[in-house]
Amino acid sequence: MMSKKLWGGRFQAETNQLVDDFGASIGFDQLMAEEDLMGSLAHVKMLGHTGILKQDEVEQITTGLKSLQDELKEGKLQFSTANEDIHMNLEALLTERIGPVAGKLHTARSRNDQVATDFHLYVKRRLPQILAAIKELQATLLKLAEKNVKTVMPGYTHLQHAQPISLAQSFLAYFNMLQRDYERFEFNQKHTDLLPLGAAALAGTTFPIDREYTAQELEFDAVYPNSLDAVSDRDFALEFLSNCSILMMHLSRFCEELSLWVSQEFNFVELSDAYTTGSSIMPQKKNPDMVELIRGKTGRVYGHLIGLLTTMKGLPLAYNKDLQEDKEGVFDTVKTILPTLKIFTGMLQTMKINKEQMYASTENDYSNATELADYLASKGVPFREAHGIVGQLVFKGIQEHRNLQEMSLAELQAASPLIENDVYHELQPEVAVERRNSLGGTGFKSIQQQIEQAQQTLAQE
Amino acid sequence: MMSKKLWGGRFQAETNQLVDDFGASIGFDQLMAEEDLMGSLAHVKMLGHTGILKQDEVEQITTGLKSLQDELKEGKLQFSTANEDIHMNLEALLTERIGPVAGKLHTARSRNDQVATDFHLYVKRRLPQILAAIKELQATLLKLAEKNVKTVMPGYTHLQHAQPISLAQSFLAYFNMLQRDYERFEFNQKHTDLLPLGAAALAGTTFPIDREYTAQELEFDAVYPNSLDAVSDRDFALEFLSNCSILMMHLSRFCEELSLWVSQEFNFVELSDAYTTGSSIMPQKKNPDMVELIRGKTGRVYGHLIGLLTTMKGLPLAYNKDLQEDKEGVFDTVKTILPTLKIFTGMLQTMKINKEQMYASTENDYSNATELADYLASKGVPFREAHGIVGQLVFKGIQEHRNLQEMSLAELQAASPLIENDVYHELQPEVAVERRNSLGGTGFKSIQQQIEQAQQTLAQE
Amino acid sequence: MMSKKLWGGRFQAETNQLVDDFGASIGFDQLMAEEDLMGSLAHVKMLGHTGILKQDEVEQITTGLKSLQDELKEGKLQFSTANEDIHMNLEALLTERIGPVAGKLHTARSRNDQVATDFHLYVKRRLPQILAAIKELQATLLKLAEKNVKTVMPGYTHLQHAQPISLAQSFLAYFNMLQRDYERFEFNQKHTDLLPLGAAALAGTTFPIDREYTAQELEFDAVYPNSLDAVSDRDFALEFLSNCSILMMHLSRFCEELSLWVSQEFNFVELSDAYTTGSSIMPQKKNPDMVELIRGKTGRVYGHLIGLLTTMKGLPLAYNKDLQEDKEGVFDTVKTILPTLKIFTGMLQTMKINKEQMYASTENDYSNATELADYLASKGVPFREAHGIVGQLVFKGIQEHRNLQEMSLAELQAASPLIENDVYHELQPEVAVERRNSLGGTGFKSIQQQIEQAQQTLAQE
Amino acid sequence: MMSKKLWGGRFQAETNQLVDDFGASIGFDQLMAEEDLMGSLAHVKMLGHTGILKQDEVEQITTGLKSLQDELKEGKLQFSTANEDIHMNLEALLTERIGPVAGKLHTARSRNDQVATDFHLYVKRRLPQILAAIKELQATLLKLAEKNVKTVMPGYTHLQHAQPISLAQSFLAYFNMLQRDYERFEFNQKHTDLLPLGAAALAGTTFPIDREYTAQELEFDAVYPNSLDAVSDRDFALEFLSNCSILMMHLSRFCEELSLWVSQEFNFVELSDAYTTGSSIMPQKKNPDMVELIRGKTGRVYGHLIGLLTTMKGLPLAYNKDLQEDKEGVFDTVKTILPTLKIFTGMLQTMKINKEQMYASTENDYSNATELADYLASKGVPFREAHGIVGQLVFKGIQEHRNLQEMSLAELQAASPLIENDVYHELQPEVAVERRNSLGGTGFKSIQQQIEQAQQTLAQE
Repeated sequence: MMSKKLWGGRFQAETNQLVDDFGASIGFDQLMAEEDLMGSLAHVKMLGHTGILKQDEVEQITTGLKSLQDELKEGKLQFSTANEDIHMNLEALLTERIGPVAGKLHTARSRNDQVATDFHLYVKRRLPQILAAIKELQATLLKLAEKNVKTVMPGYTHLQHAQPISLAQSFLAYFNMLQRDYERFEFNQKHTDLLPLGAAALAGTTFPIDREYTAQELEFDAVYPNSLDAVSDRDFALEFLSNCSILMMHLSRFCEELSLWVSQEFNFVELSDAYTTGSSIMPQKKNPDMVELIRGKTGRVYGHLIGLLTTMKGLPLAYNKDLQEDKEGVFDTVKTILPTLKIFTGMLQTMKINKEQMYASTENDYSNATELADYLASKGVPFREAHGIVGQLVFKGIQEHRNLQEMSLAELQAASPLIENDVYHELQPEVAVERRNSLGGTGFKSIQQQIEQAQQTLAQE
Repeated sequence: MMSKKLWGGRFQAETNQLVDDFGASIGFDQLMAEEDLMGSLAHVKMLGHTGILKQDEVEQITTGLKSLQDELKEGKLQFSTANEDIHMNLEALLTERIGPVAGKLHTARSRNDQVATDFHLYVKRRLPQILAAIKELQATLLKLAEKNVKTVMPGYTHLQHAQPISLAQSFLAYFNMLQRDYERFEFNQKHTDLLPLGAAALAGTTFPIDREYTAQELEFDAVYPNSLDAVSDRDFALEFLSNCSILMMHLSRFCEELSLWVSQEFNFVELSDAYTTGSSIMPQKKNPDMVELIRGKTGRVYGHLIGLLTTMKGLPLAYNKDLQEDKEGVFDTVKTILPTLKIFTGMLQTMKINKEQMYASTENDYSNATELADYLASKGVPFREAHGIVGQLVFKGIQEHRNLQEMSLAELQAASPLIENDVYHELQPEVAVERRNSLGGTGFKSIQQQIEQAQQTLAQE
Repeated sequence: MMSKKLWGGRFQAETNQLVDDFGASIGFDQLMAEEDLMGSLAHVKMLGHTGILKQDEVEQITTGLKSLQDELKEGKLQFSTANEDIHMNLEALLTERIGPVAGKLHTARSRNDQVATDFHLYVKRRLPQILAAIKELQATLLKLAEKNVKTVMPGYTHLQHAQPISLAQSFLAYFNMLQRDYERFEFNQKHTDLLPLGAAALAGTTFPIDREYTAQELEFDAVYPNSLDAVSDRDFALEFLSNCSILMMHLSRFCEELSLWVSQEFNFVELSDAYTTGSSIMPQKKNPDMVELIRGKTGRVYGHLIGLLTTMKGLPLAYNKDLQEDKEGVFDTVKTILPTLKIFTGMLQTMKINKEQMYASTENDYSNATELADYLASKGVPFREAHGIVGQLVFKGIQEHRNLQEMSLAELQAASPLIENDVYHELQPEVAVERRNSLGGTGFKSIQQQIEQAQQTLAQE
Repeated sequence: MMSKKLWGGRFQAETNQLVDDFGASIGFDQLMAEEDLMGSLAHVKMLGHTGILKQDEVEQITTGLKSLQDELKEGKLQFSTANEDIHMNLEALLTERIGPVAGKLHTARSRNDQVATDFHLYVKRRLPQILAAIKELQATLLKLAEKNVKTVMPGYTHLQHAQPISLAQSFLAYFNMLQRDYERFEFNQKHTDLLPLGAAALAGTTFPIDREYTAQELEFDAVYPNSLDAVSDRDFALEFLSNCSILMMHLSRFCEELSLWVSQEFNFVELSDAYTTGSSIMPQKKNPDMVELIRGKTGRVYGHLIGLLTTMKGLPLAYNKDLQEDKEGVFDTVKTILPTLKIFTGMLQTMKINKEQMYASTENDYSNATELADYLASKGVPFREAHGIVGQLVFKGIQEHRNLQEMSLAELQAASPLIENDVYHELQPEVAVERRNSLGGTGFKSIQQQIEQAQQTLAQE
């Protein structure tokens, strides 16, 4: 008895049930049902356009595919593991609807170029969503920056107070990271916008197809110039996972900072009840769950990247079943990235900033020590020497529990006679911030310029 | 209006819907429903045993939990995202069944130690299944080895013919890799068999609980000696993912060899129709899909390992929401590993071996060159010198399209006068194999010893 | 006693020796000595240009730095762990040469923006080398394609013979992969070509520096618009590692194919002695070491990518010592990628192709089955049905040890009466190849077009 | 002209210089020079013992090897890239010393089993060092725990104050993590203590070698039972990298906590000057460099793990050149792990603990809310209900800026009439800690028991 599988002509025995279940991809590739139908509609239109199929065949198939589209939207389509994957499932459903003419849809096409097309389409359609979500988060950060130009807080290196900065400077730092993310996802479009359809199994086809026509139908920029490459390339997916990994890395850094800022110790911001949760045992708890979950999900995205890189390592051309492993990681990453960006946006929009606490934290921390060193350097002391003088004053201060601004002029002059009364002005946190107007610095003017530049960037995109 | 969340006493606003969906784990942690109920049953029994709850309370709760167990088995339980996770879902269902006394189940327990307990139980219950599946695959390999002691094939290094070996030697190599896998999963039990329950949120509890009693109920070897560690440790999961990664690495190597062996070029074995598939476009194709899919899934498992390692990097104690990311990778790995082992076993059991082709491949390949070098070395020529003599004979042979055994004694003696007529015996592939009886070598006697040792190993486990 | 460290003003005790050794980066960051001197020269020129330093100070420092440049080129500079890193080492050497005025070089600069600048410069200067090496490998592939348009070989999917293809099609597939690599490294320049210098420690500086001037001096496209971001961003390095990972993935696939092609079983190509090695024990061995080593080094590059992603995960702004871990992986990747590309180029240039063996391998493999199915489909048989008919003919052929072209017309017509005598023409491998002239297909005309397109691409770059 | 390479008999052309450099491993495998000589000494002794070599040959070779050992210790050996690897280098040096008899050393041995032996020996000799370093760190943690049983600090979940704990509880948590690390490295010895020597190239040897004898000489527990497996197995290295990854993960968590604890905001501990560094620009900075560097190096170790896993994925048996990539990651990991453990130990031993600040931080944080809920539960209120009552009191407190202990009994009774005057006692942080005496809890008695158990564990090892 011959196998009932669509590819079963030369097979004498049925596949093992465990094998069918393990090999079937319908459990996850049904997420590309919409893309598969779009691809088939364009393909059949091209088959008509080139005269490969007759016009009435094209119409029958098109009508059938469109009715499947409708049923899909209404959630009425039932898929089965017996039909392995989304392509076979939809073809079987099409055959149910329109009879054997459905078999002609697969003319000049293989599952190898079909699945690659679906996957390209899937990513191609998500990139604009991600770009938009990044932009929205950037807009939120920009608004926060605009409102907090003069909010002074400690700037950290090594998680130690380094120099006071404007909170806006911090928001703008994340704005810039996201801008690079944006540019990476934009570039990602280039290699996603390549259509594999027409590569057939691996070698192209003898049918007089018109790949440019199909590409235009599906709004692809270009077709793959080489059929072997077309069916075995997954660069666009790796670029996507790499871009998402870097994006998550950025957000994990912001999460880390938010996690600190909402702690009792820092107490710099308060998150809205809408973005926090409680404890089943400790009634007082208000946990920044989203902050931690997003940070934690960084691991998942890195894992998907390394997973696909590993799968593709050392794989001979052209298609191998290993490549079926390309999709789940990408799907899960999309499912992770989009809500992450939206939740982050909402969380920042509803966050309350404790400006007083931030400012208070910049006093008593010797973070004006650099001001004093710069002050001395500006009076001609080699910076290295100035650094040493101030270092000893700081040590003295720590021992005597006094800040630099609390020392008398005489005391300061004992360290360096070049110090004059105007030093006290410069030792104030807001002055330290205000004066750092080098391009990109935390000075208020500099920040105003950064804000204007960011506004233009957002407007251009 | 107060939040309806179980932990919502101090909250004034509802959580955002997107947040609820993103934070909810019920979508995947319902896979631990059985373990959650087991844990609760043991916990309430202990609460009764220690007098913390009254006996009638214990009985009500126990009856309720058991009815939930029954409904779960029958697939009747409905979970909802509104209740976040499997713990809250089951508690809500219990409350529906038995009323407010259900609230007492959570006495002296927190979700932090509860989820850790469920997760330990989940892995603890899968380890024996994996151990058994490994053993079955080992038994299959051993049988294949027993049947193929005298099946001679090329042994490869650098994928070049190196020296002829017995096919059994190859099967036994994989047997040994799996034996180390087995031992790693056995060791994995040690840190899985630690019960966190009783650690409460992070610090233990003031209730006079008896953790040893609960451990005995749940058949754990020991309890965690420190509550902070108990709720934040995921070593057992990392060990599991690391062990699975190494196992998949082993199987990916075997898959690579099988992929070569079934190629038209090697043609060493044929896989059963039950473990292969065809092509939708190329009617002649018989693709070793399972071999490739298993090799490809190596990436997925590596990804889960690096994912969890990343998530846990730099995480302060004790519980953080990041840790919710610990489970999906492990669940997916279990779902990958178990069928992989079973399919591999079936695939090997039904595989046809082309012994003639294997033997034919060991001729005409100069893989007896080492024999000749060893022959010379055994006659006192320093091995390095012997190597040079034979290298030149090989070069001559390649140019003249003749094998070493096809050269006349005079020709051989021209290279070294120590060569005598008995050399032709030693240049036969089966003799080359037969004579390698150093411990662990491919000689037939050595293989017989290896088989006996392997039989004992399997019997002992 | 005060510490002798340059930053030691407030410190009372010396650092532990083990700590000094562990924390010192001079062991590897001396690879950036050239970049550090370039950066300092530009910085001091800017300090003069803006009047921050006096012209004679600038001249002294410049002369000192240039003499260090000379000594570096001559290999005369000695670095010490006591001076921690390349920046401190060079400053100490400068002080030795020109006295305390050297201390003024560090005006308006911090090690945080200095090390970021050096690292940007390091990558910036390697990208053109990598781009050139990719182009050279592409040119080699293109030449091989030009010479092998009509070299027919088996095309594989699932490592099974699928359809015959032109060897040129395979070379062009790799040409295309490398083209995407090229474009990724080009894009990589955008975020590498951002100058951090002037960000100072994290917040900018009060000195009236001119960052655009320095950028022009160092031939950077732009300056970082935000100082916090400037010192903590490593996106350019992550992009670089990701691009290198994808490149290595491509090459690992090619290596895998070459490893098969040089095997006794395939025997499709022979590598030059100059790119292979022998065995210390088996005199006949000719091992494709480079092929395997490059494939193996894929792991190393993936590891560096995941290493840096992990290091940066969850890191608060701005600079943290963790970031010192950014460089070694990038340095080692450069050391891996450049010779890899060059060796690959040389290996392909000297490779001998066994055309007869390749062609012989396309016969007797049923890889013309698709031709027959397409033949039937072109006569109006729904493709699915045609597929079934041919599948059964293949099964019959396997049982009777005959190829499709060896069956009589009567036999073929028994399967489908639509088959006529012209079928035998189409069943020839070279005809199957020749006819696949769909855009990007393996047909000879299509390949000629691909070659012309590739020539233009190479010329444009 | 014939190649001068030791394996060059059949080669006609020299290898390319770039190839020689790229393929040579002497740059790193010279780290195993000591192990290579140990292995050779044991091998030649066995060759004598079995009569394969004559006694005077054995003596000459042994004397030569021992003189090389001496020269190595004195740093006098010069290695060259021309000789590829440490094995060829040492053999060439031996030949220089004792003439052509040196060639007999390689009898019944291949570089494949030789390099595997060296690598096993390398790891085998480092494991006890790592075990000892872990134990020392554990001893330090135990001493800190002993001294801080009554040091009360906030316990955190979600980095929010959860419940007050003893600082000793935290130290003991890390003690327990390290104990599992210890056990993993102990288990690692099992698969490291397998001797591959005697497997020869891949198939064993015809010489009557005695592998058990060599194993005893080298103090290995057992020999590999299968020669193919022996030369291609790297499980012991993967186990090692996995164990090191988990260890680094643990330490990265501790580093994260220390990084918080030394911040101005937490101010819980102060690190010694000997383990911190300053800033070249900010004179007041005291940066916890070691804490950050160790956290950062976690990425490097993860990278090495994924690197080797990737390299080995899909590698056919037996030896392939890819495997040369196995060593550098392991060497670098050893170079990372050992100083990390030692520096951590010293850093903790010299750390100053600010007990007052820790205690102060447990007041005013509502971390006694669980006490109140437990208090109500112990009076019969279902815990879920008690949680709700306390949650509302906390909310009231936050609004009125008062802690629970500052509310009057009347106020508390308004929330629940079951509250009595004894509640104030239980609301004190030290009472909350003291009372958590469940097994493994943070209660003082529980901690005393944990300390005793830890003392026994350390003594046993």
